[in-house]
Amino acid sequence: MNDWLFDDCADPNEEVRQQAIAHQRQLTKPAGSLAELEDIAIRLAALQGHPDPQLERLWICVFAGDHGVMEENVSAYPQSVTAEMLRNFASGGAAISVLARGLNAPLEVINLGCVQDPPAIDGVTHLALGPGTANLAKHPAMTRQQLSAALAAGRDSVERALGAGTQLYIGGEMGIGNSTAAAALASALLSMDPARLTGPGTGLNTAGVSHKVTVIQQALSLHAEHLNNPLNCLRYLGGFEVAALVGAYIACAQAGIAVLVDGFICSSAALCAARINPACGDWLFFAHQSAEPGHKLLLQALDAKPLLKLNLRLGEGSGAALATPLMQQAVALHNQMATFSSAGVSDKH
Amino acid sequence: MNDWLFDDCADPNEEVRQQAIAHQRQLTKPAGSLAELEDIAIRLAALQGHPDPQLERLWICVFAGDHGVMEENVSAYPQSVTAEMLRNFASGGAAISVLARGLNAPLEVINLGCVQDPPAIDGVTHLALGPGTANLAKHPAMTRQQLSAALAAGRDSVERALGAGTQLYIGGEMGIGNSTAAAALASALLSMDPARLTGPGTGLNTAGVSHKVTVIQQALSLHAEHLNNPLNCLRYLGGFEVAALVGAYIACAQAGIAVLVDGFICSSAALCAARINPACGDWLFFAHQSAEPGHKLLLQALDAKPLLKLNLRLGEGSGAALATPLMQQAVALHNQMATFSSAGVSDKH
Repeated sequence: MNDWLFDDCADPNEEVRQQAIAHQRQLTKPAGSLAELEDIAIRLAALQGHPDPQLERLWICVFAGDHGVMEENVSAYPQSVTAEMLRNFASGGAAISVLARGLNAPLEVINLGCVQDPPAIDGVTHLALGPGTANLAKHPAMTRQQLSAALAAGRDSVERALGAGTQLYIGGEMGIGNSTAAAALASALLSMDPARLTGPGTGLNTAGVSHKVTVIQQALSLHAEHLNNPLNCLRYLGGFEVAALVGAYIACAQAGIAVLVDGFICSSAALCAARINPACGDWLFFAHQSAEPGHKLLLQALDAKPLLKLNLRLGEGSGAALATPLMQQAVALHNQMATFSSAGVSDKH
Repeated sequence: MNDWLFDDCADPNEEVRQQAIAHQRQLTKPAGSLAELEDIAIRLAALQGHPDPQLERLWICVFAGDHGVMEENVSAYPQSVTAEMLRNFASGGAAISVLARGLNAPLEVINLGCVQDPPAIDGVTHLALGPGTANLAKHPAMTRQQLSAALAAGRDSVERALGAGTQLYIGGEMGIGNSTAAAALASALLSMDPARLTGPGTGLNTAGVSHKVTVIQQALSLHAEHLNNPLNCLRYLGGFEVAALVGAYIACAQAGIAVLVDGFICSSAALCAARINPACGDWLFFAHQSAEPGHKLLLQALDAKPLLKLNLRLGEGSGAALATPLMQQAVALHNQMATFSSAGVSDKH
């Protein structure tokens, strides 16, 4: 039932990419002087198949879910915060709510399943996959059915985004404990010592981080024989919201929508998506390198060039929302700058 | 006639700073999770003397001028580009023009003096200080009168910005050869080997950079006995547009307007301004660390934490314009996020 994950991704238009590269060389600035921003405009032109890419219609979706691994005491915050934040997202007081408003972007909030789902809230969809995941240190985090439903929740969000003509999709996440799931997933996918990929999350101290590493090592040992493909890694170690992001990223690539990946949790989902369906990597942009020490390694594994390095560690898609204006400015420069010939400006000697 | 440079700068409001720090701790996010962006909002609150800082009214001014040191063949671009770009700024085709439009910011263009000033252009003010500076490798770059007029041109721009209620001032620069002047000025101010502060500018090759270092060394030797205070360093080694930026930065601090400093050239002006009137440093924010290798050292000397590191090397104020949305988002988050108590969200254990 997860067969759709392996369907073809949309192809970038290589002819338009060459046109965009040639166009950049004509703009009234030293060639290459806008560095990464030139590459963003060129990539978007190829992805959209149009020499003047557009980045006005955004879509932001925050996926939330609880984590059974909180039994192991792996976060500085109480688990109730996941559910409490749902209302805050919807009522406009969370960081991502403020940033979405500033970007004039719709903000979807999908609760996949909390320990105690709050009552109905306007603007929040409750999918009730379960009372959070199981404790990954002792059990598979998700059943097969939960995994499929979470992946599909991501795909469904992208279908709504596609219907709205979205040109850039941002996935966010909320889930107390989810940096443990993300570090475990990344460790399995990269066959890397979890000590290198585990950090303080929202604010653990050194002893807390050591304990978190031990919990992840325990999970990796327990599930070792099942961690033989990326979907299994996701089911045994991930979270509802992480799986939804994996589904969303792959669905975006299949639908031809560029993605701006947020922080550590989202990057673990991006890595999993790229391991499941490698061509989806063409469609992923990376917003920032966060304060979480393992994020740098994850980004390296993804060959990603993050736009920002601001030591952010908030999640919710906030880092992606913060980087969005830079992408929009890159597009505006590409589309609106004069050429040397049109402006009567001399080029290099 | 430069006495005004030493007048007092406006004082940040320390009481409001403490209010803003306390407010940040109450917002529904892990404390410190927005890192630098929290500091920006707190600093702006203190500077504006208001717990809810505002950053809607921007002012961008590009100062242009030619450089006599171009006799020494220190740029990859022909000198005519300085004058040619004036029309491009005014007609909306330059990078800073596109970015200013996107930010809904007015763009002033002040030509202090080119080798061949173009005829009148709508939207460009010609100040005609001279046909560019003198060759700093052989003469003082500016006369005393030129220096004073250039400093005053910066101050005059800030007076117009103040009249418009500006909350953030961005100075830009255009001047083929000005990375040579900036590196020479920075070397003198920091008593540092120019080889460490000299780079390719708009695109010199390795041999070109070596030659540029030699030219700067020659200038530093020639003028050594005069390089005994920051204003003299500016007069002997700077440029018209660099001096205008120095005047503008100091005038902003005196008028109580926050400044967003652009790249290498602007940072050399910021260093000079801070050496002339140290209190002005409180009012300076730094947009980015550019590709110019000496920029990192300049920023360190200024104790600056640049927002972006994107290997930009365009100038014109473009890097500052690219970083402006981040500052505006920092302010929106500070002003609009819910508190733990108002949102009913649990704080850390």
